[in-house]
Amino acid sequence: MLIHSASQLLTLPGGPQRGRELGRLGIIPNGAVLVRGGKIAAVGSTAELRADFPNEPALDAGGKVVMPGFVDPHTHLVWAGDRAAEFEMRLEGKTYLEIMAAGGGIVSTVRATRQASLETLKDQTRARMRSLLRHGTTTAEAKTGYGLETQSELHQMQVLLELDAEGGLELVPTFLGAHAIPQETKDNPQAFTDQVVSEMLPALHAWWQAHGGQRPLPYVDVFCETGAFSLEQSRQILTAAKALGFPLKIHADEFDNLGGASLAAELGAASADHLVKTSAADIAALARSNTVAVALPCTPFGLADPHYTPARAILEADGLLAVASDINPGTAWCESMQFVIALACRYLRLTPAQAVAAATINAAAAVGRAERVGSLELGKQADLLILSVDDYRHLGYRFGTNLVQTVIKRGQILPA
Amino acid sequence: MLIHSASQLLTLPGGPQRGRELGRLGIIPNGAVLVRGGKIAAVGSTAELRADFPNEPALDAGGKVVMPGFVDPHTHLVWAGDRAAEFEMRLEGKTYLEIMAAGGGIVSTVRATRQASLETLKDQTRARMRSLLRHGTTTAEAKTGYGLETQSELHQMQVLLELDAEGGLELVPTFLGAHAIPQETKDNPQAFTDQVVSEMLPALHAWWQAHGGQRPLPYVDVFCETGAFSLEQSRQILTAAKALGFPLKIHADEFDNLGGASLAAELGAASADHLVKTSAADIAALARSNTVAVALPCTPFGLADPHYTPARAILEADGLLAVASDINPGTAWCESMQFVIALACRYLRLTPAQAVAAATINAAAAVGRAERVGSLELGKQADLLILSVDDYRHLGYRFGTNLVQTVIKRGQILPA
Ligand SMILES: [Zn+2]
Ligand SMILES: [Zn+2]
Repeated sequence: MLIHSASQLLTLPGGPQRGRELGRLGIIPNGAVLVRGGKIAAVGSTAELRADFPNEPALDAGGKVVMPGFVDPHTHLVWAGDRAAEFEMRLEGKTYLEIMAAGGGIVSTVRATRQASLETLKDQTRARMRSLLRHGTTTAEAKTGYGLETQSELHQMQVLLELDAEGGLELVPTFLGAHAIPQETKDNPQAFTDQVVSEMLPALHAWWQAHGGQRPLPYVDVFCETGAFSLEQSRQILTAAKALGFPLKIHADEFDNLGGASLAAELGAASADHLVKTSAADIAALARSNTVAVALPCTPFGLADPHYTPARAILEADGLLAVASDINPGTAWCESMQFVIALACRYLRLTPAQAVAAATINAAAAVGRAERVGSLELGKQADLLILSVDDYRHLGYRFGTNLVQTVIKRGQILPA
Repeated sequence: MLIHSASQLLTLPGGPQRGRELGRLGIIPNGAVLVRGGKIAAVGSTAELRADFPNEPALDAGGKVVMPGFVDPHTHLVWAGDRAAEFEMRLEGKTYLEIMAAGGGIVSTVRATRQASLETLKDQTRARMRSLLRHGTTTAEAKTGYGLETQSELHQMQVLLELDAEGGLELVPTFLGAHAIPQETKDNPQAFTDQVVSEMLPALHAWWQAHGGQRPLPYVDVFCETGAFSLEQSRQILTAAKALGFPLKIHADEFDNLGGASLAAELGAASADHLVKTSAADIAALARSNTVAVALPCTPFGLADPHYTPARAILEADGLLAVASDINPGTAWCESMQFVIALACRYLRLTPAQAVAAATINAAAAVGRAERVGSLELGKQADLLILSVDDYRHLGYRFGTNLVQTVIKRGQILPA
């Protein structure tokens, strides 16, 4: 298939974009892309590719933007239920304790998710996956983390593998058994940390041998934050995971600067995520590493919190920056990477070009898939979007709506 | 047609909701609504209405929310071109003067709009109208204001009347010849004010007699702001408009507190809009009147400006509050009242119920249509929405996506 007559073909060439390089879109005006066997077989101008492949079935992009599918490198996709009532209570001025007393907070999602059947979890998660796809996300990381005990966490992992196998949105699984301290051990975070290390991670490893098939091991992630896991506990969990061969991620510095970003750099984690309160020293440590800094602007937006990731400082330090939705039922139920880009322009002070690169090739790097997705280069997976606009800068400029017209995953046009 | 099995039927009964009354949704659980001749013929429980109208063709709401269509009481829908390049320049740190020197700002939209043919303006505006409809807005106010000279302003008005006559989104026209001081008289705002008073308004009045048909006169609006029209100039324009019989609106206090809100109350304007820097005295004056305070949260959001309308203070003073998109090419290209609600919850500190009422019945009051739209009550126009969710609080809680599944305008189901 030859997709031609793109006003702008965004190729995002040359791999992940570090520091001030961010925003190299590799735009081909009046561009075209040849798709064969689900992969990119050629990119160039419409004139060139039409001359070279005159008999290829054609898809006219109609003078609109063609670009790689978005990669969303941080989601909490698998949960049951919702927390709309808690959202309302917060707006009515109820305190955190009142909300907890009314059964709110993460414990309510943990309760609903533990109780949900595999089919219920799949149905509710699949609906969100369809929304991600419709908004142009073709690959998404997805975390467990609403079980907080071994069997329930593995149950969520099974949901992820089964949904990924359905085709459509491609999932990159992450094990987040260490998402929060569960009610059962809430006065003893160390006991739960020990449980993660001695019970959950080995169980995950064994489960993966039995159920993971040919897949590489999933990421292991930890929530390093006051009230969750301390820096030392995070180190214990990630070190144990690394020893078992798992690649790593970390939630760090959302509310407090505990040093999680430097830990991620030290251990060679693929990404360190949130990074709102990150110190200059931690930013420098990240920038010296290949760990991608993942900003999650929907979370402060969801909470109406004015503090966002210091993205410009990360770029000035020559760090690798990506953006993600952080979709979750507590603070940020948003399926749209386009909205993430709109926030990134306004609150991270990225240009549309920088935000697009952070949402594609750099996001792919944050989930270890930069060789396969995130750009339109020869041999890469044919995951691409036709927008309804002729200038990519409408991403960012416009907000609250969906500018994706057509989604193509592994060379297949998805139904709208 | 009987629409039944709504998890929540939001009726919004009893007219506009003042002060702390705001948020009275009149929810009927497992509700139903009978539509005949494009109007609401009955509302009640599914059991009641099915018993009373057993042979009526049925539309199953499938356990989702059914509610009135949104009314967007402040839009600048008619323009040509875009300002994506200007958005990028702002993010690159270019100054206002550099942007103006590069041909940006409102003058660029005025230039493009003056040059556009009727068909071009209709095509570009129609695309936005379809997006408003898809996101659940069934009635929208729409302003001229990118002509800034008589013929071009009337040209835009003609576009609005022709588009309204096409069906689909219903438009409430507003004449905003006094949107800005045009380049031609930029050093003499008073000369342009005199021109609005002595030339534009009489020309509009005459034009309306010839082209307006049975329609009531349109609103006349003015931008009362430092750098645009002073309080005294705004008074001259609105007083002249009132003398000709036009109903009134005003843009006031977006950046400076000039007293426009009190002027609106004094002259009996239908609404005063923006109201970010409004003083306590102006809020009190509004609250003693029937002038609706219209908050436009997409504008500060679009500019990443932390200052929003003091909505809670307006409610505490017992004012009438509505919300609108302010969709325009400079600061807020957003077609979605759902996103307006998401912002209203976070930055105006409204509950979802308050935001929904501000976006329906109170928004209808701001455009003088509260007798006809904005609620599901006997005899009103059958403009309604079926959402994809079973709890209205997902409006606000979730953001960046479209939760409207089906739009019904004057009893007709619109194609998706
Ligand atoms: Zn997270
Ligand atoms: Zn306006």
